[in-house]
Amino acid sequence: MSANSDGLLVVGGDAGGMSAAATARRLAPELGIRAFERGPYTSYSACGIPYFVAGLFDDAERLISRRPAEFAEQGIEVVTEAEVVDIDLDRREVTVARRGRAPAREGFDQLVYATGAEAVVPPIPGAEAIEPVRTVDAAERFRDQLLNGRGGGCAVVIGASYLGLEMAEALIERGMSVTLVDRADQVMTTLDADMAAEVQAAAEGKGIRVLLGGEIEEIRRHPDGRARSVKLVDEELEADHVVLSTGVRPAVALAEAAGLEIGPSGALAVDDHQRCAGAEGVFAAGDCAESWHRLLERPVNVQLGTHANKQGRVAGTNAAGGDASFPGLIGTAVSKICRYEVARTGLSEGEAADAGIDVVSASIDSKTRAGYFPGTGPIRVKLVADAGGRLLGGQIVGVEGAAKRIDVLAACVWSGMAVDELEMLDLSYAPPFSGVYDPLLVAARATAHAVRAAA
Amino acid sequence: MSANSDGLLVVGGDAGGMSAAATARRLAPELGIRAFERGPYTSYSACGIPYFVAGLFDDAERLISRRPAEFAEQGIEVVTEAEVVDIDLDRREVTVARRGRAPAREGFDQLVYATGAEAVVPPIPGAEAIEPVRTVDAAERFRDQLLNGRGGGCAVVIGASYLGLEMAEALIERGMSVTLVDRADQVMTTLDADMAAEVQAAAEGKGIRVLLGGEIEEIRRHPDGRARSVKLVDEELEADHVVLSTGVRPAVALAEAAGLEIGPSGALAVDDHQRCAGAEGVFAAGDCAESWHRLLERPVNVQLGTHANKQGRVAGTNAAGGDASFPGLIGTAVSKICRYEVARTGLSEGEAADAGIDVVSASIDSKTRAGYFPGTGPIRVKLVADAGGRLLGGQIVGVEGAAKRIDVLAACVWSGMAVDELEMLDLSYAPPFSGVYDPLLVAARATAHAVRAAA
Repeated sequence: MSANSDGLLVVGGDAGGMSAAATARRLAPELGIRAFERGPYTSYSACGIPYFVAGLFDDAERLISRRPAEFAEQGIEVVTEAEVVDIDLDRREVTVARRGRAPAREGFDQLVYATGAEAVVPPIPGAEAIEPVRTVDAAERFRDQLLNGRGGGCAVVIGASYLGLEMAEALIERGMSVTLVDRADQVMTTLDADMAAEVQAAAEGKGIRVLLGGEIEEIRRHPDGRARSVKLVDEELEADHVVLSTGVRPAVALAEAAGLEIGPSGALAVDDHQRCAGAEGVFAAGDCAESWHRLLERPVNVQLGTHANKQGRVAGTNAAGGDASFPGLIGTAVSKICRYEVARTGLSEGEAADAGIDVVSASIDSKTRAGYFPGTGPIRVKLVADAGGRLLGGQIVGVEGAAKRIDVLAACVWSGMAVDELEMLDLSYAPPFSGVYDPLLVAARATAHAVRAAA
Repeated sequence: MSANSDGLLVVGGDAGGMSAAATARRLAPELGIRAFERGPYTSYSACGIPYFVAGLFDDAERLISRRPAEFAEQGIEVVTEAEVVDIDLDRREVTVARRGRAPAREGFDQLVYATGAEAVVPPIPGAEAIEPVRTVDAAERFRDQLLNGRGGGCAVVIGASYLGLEMAEALIERGMSVTLVDRADQVMTTLDADMAAEVQAAAEGKGIRVLLGGEIEEIRRHPDGRARSVKLVDEELEADHVVLSTGVRPAVALAEAAGLEIGPSGALAVDDHQRCAGAEGVFAAGDCAESWHRLLERPVNVQLGTHANKQGRVAGTNAAGGDASFPGLIGTAVSKICRYEVARTGLSEGEAADAGIDVVSASIDSKTRAGYFPGTGPIRVKLVADAGGRLLGGQIVGVEGAAKRIDVLAACVWSGMAVDELEMLDLSYAPPFSGVYDPLLVAARATAHAVRAAA
């Protein structure tokens, strides 16, 4: 770092920001790199929180992949509990607030904005008092609340996204009675209703009460502040604990105030180099940024650690004078919900309809292993193709071994493969892993038939 | 079936032949269809035999996917223990031999030749007396021999292919002391030596003694015929049971005698419609036929049920007047060997070298799940790319959940994807299924680096 250079400044110390910092460090050993993180932790796995809450492991530190001291060894200065409260693009400096200190100004040559997302608090009286369980420290507080005296037998989870389902399952694992409430008429709206029904059945099979079309009027508390109940229009659910899983939105207030462009999805507008529009040397990455959807051919905002990491690498490469681009996404996701693994990629029927794309779909039921092989169990695969037979998307629900097959579909969607080509693809076969026709081949065959029948 | 039509005749009642028969039946409800099978069973899973031998299930009938009576319900006549001993292409008839009956002639309009493969008996004195465990009835006899008095504590498996390894593991599961001998200097020559070493370590970890570079002089027997020992140049291995796993070859003697063309691989030469060269209305499918290798761009002979089934469908479609083609294969295979799942697709480094293709490769070690997720374990991925970065092949060794990832690589190899595109592919992520970068993405990144470094 030359004496009169301010170097790279990173706002936000999680996946996107720290990937950018680490990548820039590798490319530019002399570059000064500082990162400011509002919370106490860097580079943690928010996706792992439900498993910590469930008690699959007891040390929340295991969620943290890298700590400030490790970054310091690489010559990356990370300041935690330091919130960037203002960005001045003209003067190329930020204002950093730290408890017990006067706000400080920090200059930058390049800036990576990676503030992530923040929970959306639904407009329900009482919801504002519930702390979202989105960070390692919040997860520790919630776990302590479950274990230490403030416990109790009943929980209500509001929002039946994959995260809401994971949290509901975690609380069942803790021996609680759990109701999962959602306004929608299905769980996991990222799936088509027919596939979501399988997931709902699995949740119910685990003992979760799933209450759909539920309009919540109020979250009620005891005088001492503890949760008491969730009042619906026609029912009041006892609730010693209430978990909000009603979605997140990109944390862009600071960027917006600085004059950075917000895109149609509500996240920061970036090009494929993660450059913020019209702001030289300013990049954004992760949950706060838009991503190009390769099938919808428009920017979207998807909050997933895998994109945040990749985009951080791209931003860090470009910030350090290299040349990298993020090729976009196709909406791949996976989760484990009770007895099922659940996954999706590309477009669902519903998403295709919303985008005005005519599609054909087919679903098949098969087995994860050869019929005689111990541990075999159900797998349902649904494929969505355009009228010409090009694979546009897939959804999978099934037992152990089912869901990672989504990556095969992701590769095929990405490449623009047709379902009748997929039908003959040279996929692996052995009895511990599938029947002689992998369920994906069976699904491709059914979809190819459906495409021909619809033609 | 019209009165003066002989219809479709199928030689061989396993995967290829019966897939052809069932497909032809669906397309041509009036077509007469007869199949002749030498053994007592139809449509069985030879791949499942090691699991039956291991005792994972006790009823060998579970290996059979469809029986003659089920085919009869579809109007497909299947005659078992009926061996086709001659094919006369000019008169369009075959000669069928059945025990206790005079040879009978059967006419055909279309013929599907699907005789499978037969064990290669190595030129070792005593090997000729060992029955190959390749059919359901042979497996039952071998299991009875293990269980019923002819048992004993020591077994030698000759041939360290995936099948030899599976059989060795099965005998360990039966509580035996097992030595696996191979002349080669590595197990599983379908893998590169570095990956095979991992598999060998897993086999040894399970208690199998692996003896490589082993030259066998003789298989010795007790006076009553029971196996006694396997004599190597410098050692004699006690052996109450000897299993031969020294490879198979296409069963083409009958076809060759009939004048059908044998290709360079030693199997029947067919075009992409499974038509035998120069023989109108004669098709071949499965282990006895060649398959087009899409990367080597030449015919090969690969014995796997998945190809046999697909080729049978293609042959059956075309025999019934439809139009289908087999697009070829890329060498995908998977197996479970002791604690590891093992898989490969495309070209190994060794295969590429044999084919004169310059390649770059990289191997990485990663985890099957997030580091904090219970059940996480090692996975090693090796990728092979051409000098321009196009993915040509992959190999995977790892614990539960590792191997089916090979299908993602198969889809990418099939599509001609470059490793730097794979590096940014939108693969699924959640803690139960991988770290934030799937091992495939980590491997693609390492390989992309290696390609750039080699350029």
